[in-house]
Amino acid sequence: MTYKTPQDLYPVTVNEERIAKYIQNLAQFGMNEKGGIDRSLGSKADIQARNWLKKLWKTALNATVTVDPAANLWAERKGKEKMKPIVLGSHHDAVANGGKYDGAVGVLLATEVVQSLKEADYKLRHPIKIVSFSAEEPNPYNISTLGSRLITGVLDGKQIGEATHQYTHEKLSETLKRLGGDVADVANHLLTSDDVDVFLECHIEQGRRLMDYGSSLAVVSTITGIYREEITIYGEANHAGTTMMENRHDALLAGAELSLAVEEAVLKQNRTDVVGTVGHMEISPNSANIIPGTAQLILEIRTSNDQVLKRLIEQLTQRCAEIEVKRQIIIKRKTILDQKAVPMDPLVRKVLQQSIRAFGESYLDLPSMAGHDAVHMVPVAKTGMVFVPSIDGKSHCPEEKTRTEDIVKAGNVLIQTVIALDKELD
Amino acid sequence: MTYKTPQDLYPVTVNEERIAKYIQNLAQFGMNEKGGIDRSLGSKADIQARNWLKKLWKTALNATVTVDPAANLWAERKGKEKMKPIVLGSHHDAVANGGKYDGAVGVLLATEVVQSLKEADYKLRHPIKIVSFSAEEPNPYNISTLGSRLITGVLDGKQIGEATHQYTHEKLSETLKRLGGDVADVANHLLTSDDVDVFLECHIEQGRRLMDYGSSLAVVSTITGIYREEITIYGEANHAGTTMMENRHDALLAGAELSLAVEEAVLKQNRTDVVGTVGHMEISPNSANIIPGTAQLILEIRTSNDQVLKRLIEQLTQRCAEIEVKRQIIIKRKTILDQKAVPMDPLVRKVLQQSIRAFGESYLDLPSMAGHDAVHMVPVAKTGMVFVPSIDGKSHCPEEKTRTEDIVKAGNVLIQTVIALDKELD
Repeated sequence: MTYKTPQDLYPVTVNEERIAKYIQNLAQFGMNEKGGIDRSLGSKADIQARNWLKKLWKTALNATVTVDPAANLWAERKGKEKMKPIVLGSHHDAVANGGKYDGAVGVLLATEVVQSLKEADYKLRHPIKIVSFSAEEPNPYNISTLGSRLITGVLDGKQIGEATHQYTHEKLSETLKRLGGDVADVANHLLTSDDVDVFLECHIEQGRRLMDYGSSLAVVSTITGIYREEITIYGEANHAGTTMMENRHDALLAGAELSLAVEEAVLKQNRTDVVGTVGHMEISPNSANIIPGTAQLILEIRTSNDQVLKRLIEQLTQRCAEIEVKRQIIIKRKTILDQKAVPMDPLVRKVLQQSIRAFGESYLDLPSMAGHDAVHMVPVAKTGMVFVPSIDGKSHCPEEKTRTEDIVKAGNVLIQTVIALDKELD
Repeated sequence: MTYKTPQDLYPVTVNEERIAKYIQNLAQFGMNEKGGIDRSLGSKADIQARNWLKKLWKTALNATVTVDPAANLWAERKGKEKMKPIVLGSHHDAVANGGKYDGAVGVLLATEVVQSLKEADYKLRHPIKIVSFSAEEPNPYNISTLGSRLITGVLDGKQIGEATHQYTHEKLSETLKRLGGDVADVANHLLTSDDVDVFLECHIEQGRRLMDYGSSLAVVSTITGIYREEITIYGEANHAGTTMMENRHDALLAGAELSLAVEEAVLKQNRTDVVGTVGHMEISPNSANIIPGTAQLILEIRTSNDQVLKRLIEQLTQRCAEIEVKRQIIIKRKTILDQKAVPMDPLVRKVLQQSIRAFGESYLDLPSMAGHDAVHMVPVAKTGMVFVPSIDGKSHCPEEKTRTEDIVKAGNVLIQTVIALDKELD
């Protein structure tokens, strides 16, 4: 089944069998007995994947392959004119026991797009580049979106100086060196807006909004803001037998009320662009026969809408005050993260949307509720993202899956988007 | 201020200054810089306390002092007749950073009672004994009420064979040996109903019922039953950004609802003899950006009333089913403790009550919501307990305090109770 290009578009499409094969090929590196992928930074599987990608780019794309000081992999094909490049990519690492599609789709579809253009002998004015960023996922060094943050200067090389692998204790700087990077040299090679014109990332949605709406594609509007609070509840530890119910100051029950209040407040917003989670809770002394004296929670709210965040924090403050009075406990709150939402580039969004409509497809206009490398490319490039559906919304697990036909649609849209932007941008 | 004995009672009372001094003396052993007591089994403070008690009993009481195979300390003064002894006592160990009164009051007041009777030259028909049990409190060997359970055969010497101190790693059997015990010899010296006639324990309430009612004394009706369940909630760990609220199966929120349901159900009973606690909760993966996949809780319900327990468990089962349906999660429950309530001896209770009334005092008839060594003496002796008030209900902390005048009242009641039981029992 080959996708038919509409008449007014340049007739070049991705190769469905090939992109499916690429995904299966990359998935071999780090596949465990559960069918999950273990491919964290510096692992054998990471190195295998890197070598395979570099060889593929050299042989299939005849591209110039380089490794930057953050150990990000780059492939380049020259354009007809001396211009800043159009860059496509994502990441090839995986969370522990992760899936075959997260990150991989973006890197391999970038490869397939460049290969298809090459085979169709379509000459772009701009150079076209592919990037596969290092360590986008949570990893044993406890630093995610490492490659994109390092190379754009969001993360200072010095800041990672002491980071080590939690199991092997290898220094992150040593790991990067093994992979062809050099932390000390990052500052001399920071990406700026002189180096990139456009960055396009295709990624799996990792949620089920596309699936629930029956759409194959989403154009990302913004990448969600992430707000986190560390909340400590000070109650009174006491004997769980002799302390009557009305004399208790139970920190766990206060935390329970607070967690449920977060859920209730977010649900009341009745929006698809906000979620709230208490993912972490520690009780002390955490003993069957002692009333919990303290509870420590981490609250996370994700939304692209500052007003919604403000409203939720106000409601939470109100509820905290009520719980403090009701239970005679003290609630201390500390903001530990307040990462603002990052909008995608309007022009890139518009061209992505036009390309999708040209194929007669529908799309959703969605905020990304997960962070991505694209966030860090925004300051240096006109950045856009396309989402493809995650079956049942599953991600970061062996069951993670996206239908090939949806990936093909995204690939064809990317080709037309690249062609259109290549024409439009000087 | 000396307590005046009513005319129809034998004129012997405890010495207020002396009992206050005894309590301050014992508190020196293990007192830390916070004013709390650190006196766990086998510690230097434990050994100092043991030596001090043994010397006190020999010198002040002219008693025969022995150490049984469970390292429990005993003092004996012979009676006029060949009878089974009346035993008074409690324990002298303390939880980490505990108080001066828990256990100590029972042992020292027993001492004071025997000393007062001796000084008044009152000759009992029965032998009178004092016991201070080993390791009643939660301790670094993770075995509480050790001495009373060992010597009454509730705990088999073999069962503690492998227990070790969590910090020093000393074997419990070695510790007991250092203290004059011998685990291997316990089986040959088990207490039976041939060895004890009556057991009387005075203890601090560790709650605030006496204080709230303005009473100085309580006669314990039963020692509470303790029921524990390990509850595991299986939800679905998922991305805390991309998983919309309505698609979540959040184990923490299910645990929060369950914990609040326990509180609600217990409060609805509107009784002073039942409490319910979720003291332990572990979340997994317990990460800020992942929806909690599992939650493990320990629920404890304490009540002396089987019907109340049954009703609460039924209500809990109902609520679990509702939460399972609402959140599409699975709740597995396992009963890990179902210790039935233990009633105190009716005759001993009656004599205690009569003695209190003879002084014109009021008392509360209360179930003990904490476990005590007395529980394990029930099968071998007519057992009774008296509670004295804990100021503000505080216990197991440096602030633990009981007014000396209340301890004196309990001492005088114990003297009259011993005299009455000595007359009544053959």
